[in-house]
Order: sequence, then structure tokens, then C-alpha cells
Amino acid sequence: MLDAPGAPDRKIAALRWDGERLTLLDQTLLPSEERWITLTGAQDTADAIARLAVRGAPNIGIAAAYGLAMAVSVDPSPAAVREAAATLSGARPTAVNLAYAVDRVLDAAMGAIGELGERAAPAAARAEAEALHSEEYLAAAEIARLGADLLRGRRRILTHCNTGALAAPGAGSALGVIAELAARNPAVTVLACETRPLLQGARLTAWELQRLGIPCELVVDGAAAGLIRTGAVDAVVVGCDRIAANGDVANKVGTYAHALAAAAAGIPFVVAGPTSTLDLATPDGDGIPVEERHADEVLGFGGASIAPDGVAVRNPAFDVTPAELITAIVTERGVVRAPFGENLAAL
Amino acid sequence: MLDAPGAPDRKIAALRWDGERLTLLDQTLLPSEERWITLTGAQDTADAIARLAVRGAPNIGIAAAYGLAMAVSVDPSPAAVREAAATLSGARPTAVNLAYAVDRVLDAAMGAIGELGERAAPAAARAEAEALHSEEYLAAAEIARLGADLLRGRRRILTHCNTGALAAPGAGSALGVIAELAARNPAVTVLACETRPLLQGARLTAWELQRLGIPCELVVDGAAAGLIRTGAVDAVVVGCDRIAANGDVANKVGTYAHALAAAAAGIPFVVAGPTSTLDLATPDGDGIPVEERHADEVLGFGGASIAPDGVAVRNPAFDVTPAELITAIVTERGVVRAPFGENLAAL
Repeated sequence: MLDAPGAPDRKIAALRWDGERLTLLDQTLLPSEERWITLTGAQDTADAIARLAVRGAPNIGIAAAYGLAMAVSVDPSPAAVREAAATLSGARPTAVNLAYAVDRVLDAAMGAIGELGERAAPAAARAEAEALHSEEYLAAAEIARLGADLLRGRRRILTHCNTGALAAPGAGSALGVIAELAARNPAVTVLACETRPLLQGARLTAWELQRLGIPCELVVDGAAAGLIRTGAVDAVVVGCDRIAANGDVANKVGTYAHALAAAAAGIPFVVAGPTSTLDLATPDGDGIPVEERHADEVLGFGGASIAPDGVAVRNPAFDVTPAELITAIVTERGVVRAPFGENLAAL
Repeated sequence: MLDAPGAPDRKIAALRWDGERLTLLDQTLLPSEERWITLTGAQDTADAIARLAVRGAPNIGIAAAYGLAMAVSVDPSPAAVREAAATLSGARPTAVNLAYAVDRVLDAAMGAIGELGERAAPAAARAEAEALHSEEYLAAAEIARLGADLLRGRRRILTHCNTGALAAPGAGSALGVIAELAARNPAVTVLACETRPLLQGARLTAWELQRLGIPCELVVDGAAAGLIRTGAVDAVVVGCDRIAANGDVANKVGTYAHALAAAAAGIPFVVAGPTSTLDLATPDGDGIPVEERHADEVLGFGGASIAPDGVAVRNPAFDVTPAELITAIVTERGVVRAPFGENLAAL
């Protein structure tokens, strides 16, 4: 089994592809249990994405690509392929990598069907999914390098949610930048926001940083702004689920407040993400669909109820950070700064 | 038993004084259990304050005042009275109401000892504690009235932590304002931030609002800024633990990010608190001691561990919101606006 085709083994990997089946580390169970699940088609892959067994915008895209490739192997008829693609695309609405990856594999399968017939579709779909996985792997490595160059000399880094090896191939996006920065400077420390409601920061980022041997302190999300204000943070680095054409960025709920605090304190607020996250068809953040998830995510944890029965909940899974609060967006094709509209289009 | 001397019965009260003993609703157990605990002196009252069985700046002050009065009844010698006062003052560092209340009862006891001897001290201490309780009760009612006047026409109110009848006498501070606003306009709805780590918003504010029949939606703290940005909130109203001379305000951790978001969106950010929260001896927010609490508050959630073993934690219980982000501070002596330094001193 390989992390990515041609990639070296990594300490942590969230998904493995053996050429036929996709195996996922079920992230809903971490850090208390490391259970791998095997997927075989579009529906079970879509379900795994929807329930966050696999998460992180790049890994959502890769899982969906393999999900569609597996579905094409089962039934390469155009109608079945289109239905499988629709099932996967609809699993979650905000991360644009999902639609991007599904569209690429769909186009490859339909192209093969048109040129060579249905029998050619499985191999074409599989090759496209593997190519996408490889590209994301290489993109993550380049983002880590460029981001660490950009943040040279910054020591105390605050991050939100999980953007490491569990969210993207290789070392991840934002956490990949931080890992590279820490590899270059052992004095680097991380403030990890716990990331309510699903605690990806506490469960996953703290777990990854422990494995990487990078010093980490966990904070509640609401503590970030005050710590930034009092000078405890040198830079904020986060991932992204969708970048609009004007540079507005959708990311895990709670990100926007960190961006406001970073701007008020005059420290860099850096977004790391592959170009698969870029959506030039959406002009600005107001056009990004923000997924509203189930109330249970907020109301319960570990089997315990935290609020009185019958309380209503709003549970947006993402928020939008306006471009004017963003110092730079680090992609594998370069570091983009304002004016974002112009500079993102030039990528 | 009375909520406050001379006050009518209220639907919810966090503490009761029968003239000799203080009884507290243990807020660490709400909403799943309503257990009352009886206190008899300085040490058990200080312990109850430190472990948050009683909380909210005004109620911390009132509980400490009664704690000292009970201690004076047991041993009215000057040394014992001073020791009891020190025990209570040291229970928590940030809310200035604690030191203010203890100092008032201490002065009353020592004054009585000086003039009339030790035998006069218990009655003097008790009378001062009861006077303070009555004053805070009347202050809360006036703050509710003035705050509701100020926010007339605002319908969707976001608040943080718990500032209701569990935090202050009567209907509370910020939640008292909201309850009065809702009494005047049935269309008022509340977005309650859950308030990690100890979930006072989810456990206590949602519980109080249910009892008051005011529609409420619970959100994770990190969702507040994004909801404010997208126009879902008409005003933010919070309480406070200490107001510095220049108008900087210490309040429950997470408050500052809401203030940044409110300023960015151009909606009012209103602080409600009695003048007992005002500390003219502290020039600005940098001088306010911010309590750092135990890592377990962050690492545990409903009895379950949320992070891998051995993860370090930073757990500041408060943050400071600079005066320039505050639209108005509502006290029982009037609504204060910028320039806060001048206008707070004039109170």
C-alpha cells in the first residue's frame, strides 16, 4: 500500500490506495482508536465523506476521486458513472476540491467511453484519480516549502482545525508549512485551537504534532484572539476549503475571528492550500455555500449532553474570511498576495 | 429565604441568605442537576468561588461578602477577620467585585471593632453584606432598564457566557438587559455562545432563557464572528469582570473576538455591569490580572478526554476587550460612552 503513488512512506497517512480499494483511517475515532475502513464504491465513499471519517479539503477530493474510480470499475455505463459522480459531489457542499476531483475523474471516464468504449473507462478513471493524488502530494510538499520560506523567523504559530497529514497528502497544507518551519527551526511552537464543535484541533492536530515531536499547546477557540492581542503569537496559518476569485476564503468555522485578531495585532494571517481549492467561478465569499451541520455536533460530546433538552442550535461548519484580512495565500504555484483577484487569476 | 433583602421572589436565583447561612445553587452541576449547598464561613465560600459553584462577577462579590460576614460571626478578632478577608479575596483574581465586596465588609467589621468592640462586628459585617446584596439587586434592575432603552429596536442579540440570574441578583447584567428587551418586544431572539471551556452559555444561559421563554439558538464560540459578518446579529451584549479606568474590559475568554467582529460589521457591542465592576485604580486592560485555570477544563468534555494524553494547554479564563471596540458600557448610574476615561471617572 502506498500513501501516494510514488511517494515515500510517511509517519501519518489518512488514506491508502492499493490500486483497487481505498482504505481510510476513520478520523471520527481518533485519537482514542486507530481504525481503518475499506471502501468499495461511490455510496460508501460519499457516506465516509459526509460523516467526516475522511476530512480536509484535499483528502476529501482524493477520496472522492477514488470513490468514483471504484464505481466506474463496477459499472462503466455513462448513466451509472454520472450517478456515482453526483452522489460523491453532493456529499459535502463547501470544499470545492470535492467537485474539482469528481469532475476530473468523470471527464476522464467519459472521455475514455467516447473514444474507446466502456471497457476503457475503469483504467482511465483510476489513472486520473492516481494522477490527482500524486499532484496533491507534490503540491503539499511545495506549499510547505514556500510557506516556511514566507514565515522565516516566526516562531510561535497559531493554527485552527486540522490541516496536516490527516487532511492532505504528505505533511498537509497549513500544518505542512508549520512542520517544515519546525524542521528548519527547533524553537517553533504551535498554539492549536481545539476547533469546536468536532474538536479536530484537539483530537487530530495535537495528535499529529505529538507524533512529529513539535511542541504544542492546546487552547479553546475563544482564547485565540486574546492571546494574539497580548503578543503570544507570531503568525496565524490556516488551511482553506474554498478560495473565491477575489481571495475571500472559506475555512473551518472560527477562522474569521482569528483573522480579525491577527489584523488588529499586525501579525501575518496566512492561508495554505493547493490550487485545487481555488474556485475562480465564484466571485467572492458570499457565493460560497456554507454547510450547516447537525445540532448533535454542538449539543453532545462523548455521550454527554452539554445543554438542556430542546435547545435550538445553529451549526455552520465554515466561515468566510474576507481577502483584505489575508496576508498571503500559499499555493503550490507560488505565494499570492493582494490584489488577490488579479494575482489568483494569473496562477 | 430571600433572593435579596426586600426583593420579590424570582424564577431563578443562584444564592439565598437567611440571615445566618448562605445557600448556593451549585452551578457546576447545571443543567443536569439542581443541587443547593450550604456555606458557613470564609474557607468553604472561597472554595465554592474557586471551583465556580458560584460565578458571575456580581454574585462572586455577594457570596464573598456573606462569606466574610459568616466568618466574623464565628471569630470577630481583628486577626481572624483579616485572615478570612484575605482567604476570600484570593479565591479568584480577575473579577474586581470580589475585592470590592470583601473590602467593604472588612471595613465595616473593623470600623465596628474600633468603635464598639469585637461584639459589634458580626452585626456590622452582616448589615454591610446585606446592603451590598440589595445594592447589586437594584443595580441589576436599573442596568436592565437602561440597556433595553439603549438597544431599542435591536432584535437578534448575541451574548457570551452567562450573565443572567445565575451570575447576578435579579435578572442579571447582560442577560438582564436581554430579558428586559424581550419583555418589551416578543420578537427578540438570542444567539448564545456555548462558552468553552466550561460551557456556561450552553449549560446556564440556554437553561435560563428556556425558563424565561425567550427563543434561543446555541452556537459554538467560533461561529459567532461569521454569523455577525453575514448579518445574523443586530447587537452583541456581554457582561464584564473588571472595567479598567480607560474603559478596557476584562470578560470571559472569547469576548474580544466578538467585539472585533461587531466592530467590523458596524453593530453595537455593549457591556453591561454594575459600578462594583469598575476599577479606576487599574489604568488599562494590560493591568488586569487574567486568571489561568487548570488544563483539565480544556482537556475534558462531558467526562470524556478530547485530546491525546500529555498535551499541554493554555487556559486563560478571561480576555481583554479594548475600549475602542466598545459602543457603550451600561451601569446602574447611566450609560457610558467614549471618551471612557473621562466618562467613567465622572460616574
